[in-house]
Amino acid sequence: MFLNDIPSKQDIIDAHGRIAGQVHRTPLLTSASINAIAGCKIFFKCENFQKAGAFKFRGASNAILSLSKAERIKGVCTHSSGNHAAALALAAKMKKIPAYVVMPRTAPDIKKKAVAGYGAAIRYCDPTLAAREAALAEIVKETGAVFIHPFDNDAVIAGQGSAAKEIFEQTEGLDYLITPVGGGGLLSGSALSTRYFSPRTTVIGAEPSGADDAFRSLRDGFIHPSVNPKSICDGLLTNLSERTFGIIRGNVGEIVTVEEKSIMEAMRMIWERMKLVVEPSGAITLAAILENREKFSGKMIALILSGGNADLDNLPWTNHGAHRMDTKGPS
Amino acid sequence: MFLNDIPSKQDIIDAHGRIAGQVHRTPLLTSASINAIAGCKIFFKCENFQKAGAFKFRGASNAILSLSKAERIKGVCTHSSGNHAAALALAAKMKKIPAYVVMPRTAPDIKKKAVAGYGAAIRYCDPTLAAREAALAEIVKETGAVFIHPFDNDAVIAGQGSAAKEIFEQTEGLDYLITPVGGGGLLSGSALSTRYFSPRTTVIGAEPSGADDAFRSLRDGFIHPSVNPKSICDGLLTNLSERTFGIIRGNVGEIVTVEEKSIMEAMRMIWERMKLVVEPSGAITLAAILENREKFSGKMIALILSGGNADLDNLPWTNHGAHRMDTKGPS
Repeated sequence: MFLNDIPSKQDIIDAHGRIAGQVHRTPLLTSASINAIAGCKIFFKCENFQKAGAFKFRGASNAILSLSKAERIKGVCTHSSGNHAAALALAAKMKKIPAYVVMPRTAPDIKKKAVAGYGAAIRYCDPTLAAREAALAEIVKETGAVFIHPFDNDAVIAGQGSAAKEIFEQTEGLDYLITPVGGGGLLSGSALSTRYFSPRTTVIGAEPSGADDAFRSLRDGFIHPSVNPKSICDGLLTNLSERTFGIIRGNVGEIVTVEEKSIMEAMRMIWERMKLVVEPSGAITLAAILENREKFSGKMIALILSGGNADLDNLPWTNHGAHRMDTKGPS
Repeated sequence: MFLNDIPSKQDIIDAHGRIAGQVHRTPLLTSASINAIAGCKIFFKCENFQKAGAFKFRGASNAILSLSKAERIKGVCTHSSGNHAAALALAAKMKKIPAYVVMPRTAPDIKKKAVAGYGAAIRYCDPTLAAREAALAEIVKETGAVFIHPFDNDAVIAGQGSAAKEIFEQTEGLDYLITPVGGGGLLSGSALSTRYFSPRTTVIGAEPSGADDAFRSLRDGFIHPSVNPKSICDGLLTNLSERTFGIIRGNVGEIVTVEEKSIMEAMRMIWERMKLVVEPSGAITLAAILENREKFSGKMIALILSGGNADLDNLPWTNHGAHRMDTKGPS
């Protein structure tokens, strides 16, 4: 991939303008008590308040709004462990076009219900890459729907980049921007927005240490597959694509790995101190700070709270919730 | 009590000005999906985001800031099941004066920890009115601290009224304002603000049916004591005082009682749909709408989400949490 293939500054500006009518401009919140605990000044971008409960609605909206009229008629399809699926389903519903979603049977109930609630046709598959791709190929063959990949798609990446663009409109002087990294759509979009709109800010990805393929990929210079990842962050188990890896390699300062215990503590801290429901994948960014206090001491840092679709019957600090960690496959 | 004894319009304006420097002006949020479910347009006043996690910080701040210098030196004291105690402790800490708190041993852990964390001296007592009053009298005798009652205090009522005053600054055309009712501080302050700043809005109190003393008091024209109340709303188990009853009788349209099951459903709906952590006492206002859809159909309604200090280890929709309901005494 050549550098001039990646979404340009104008692409992100256009994406942001295109989706502005249907995407929430989410608030950037602060917490005096968390700042005191962490020893730095943190701005939380509340994508848990985004429609469908996660930043994914930005990319899904931009992808659908970028389709031609002829493409839209046949609808869209995707595979996803959840948040992208819900986002695509809602964005399709808002444009009154069909959506077809392949989901692993093991996805959390709250995410299955959300996708069904937004009116998408769901096809369940085994939680393997092969089963997922086979089910998707069938759907494309049967319906002619356009496949909107959860992250390996320039329109999706440009849409995700609108969250960071808003952050830089909402505050100034940021030393760091930290986002979670799974397949790399949010991280690569955020990195591009930062390069275009706030080049003095360093972008960092936060990844579960039990699913550290992006960390190893950046370190080694080639994409490691995500093999048997283990984390409560069900949105962060995927590996990078060539497209997201290329952008991340050129524009992200560092990927920080975070322990499960820290993720749970950070999640609980956000619930208790900020009264915000965030899912584990959303809390990992705060965990990255709490595990590296010296590095971030005294800095101005924006975090993207990527989503709020936590399973309320299965919280990680209850015994029942703790089981979740061992039962997740790649998604 | 005579009508001219109650906090005046100017008292509430003064209170709001006095506390503005240390109290959050909380946002008024909406949820398209909850509006669709409820069939009306709801504005949620997010006092769960207030300092110390509840509206109580408004009244406590106004009471402390209204004291003379000589009074402040000896400090303040109170009895409370929790949110008022935490609020008073924090407001005292911010003014660097001592705070003494009498709490029932049965108060939720999260509230005990909060009070201790804000540096107040806690004296535990049995969960009876007699034990509480005896412990408080001792503290006053020993320290000379000024007793700041959780609701039977004009400065507290005027402070609580600032939340409704903000609501009317944040939106217009409200048909109803609904607040929870326990001892009646929030409801009476809100009713006065409504009379002064938005007289066409009708104020309604929402009360657990298992602790319906205020409902019966308003119906019968005299104060019923709260005898053996049963509800997950640990902040709403107290009975009214002459002061709050007098204001409520003259300025509140109605008190609506709500079943426990509806309170849990409303609480969960706010967590899931709005990604906000609210405690049961905060969710009862939405439950009042969901139990009375016809009455509120098509209306513009503001609700005060009174607090967010939910016990995350003891959620009402888990089996463990369900036990709580039977173990609470008056507080």
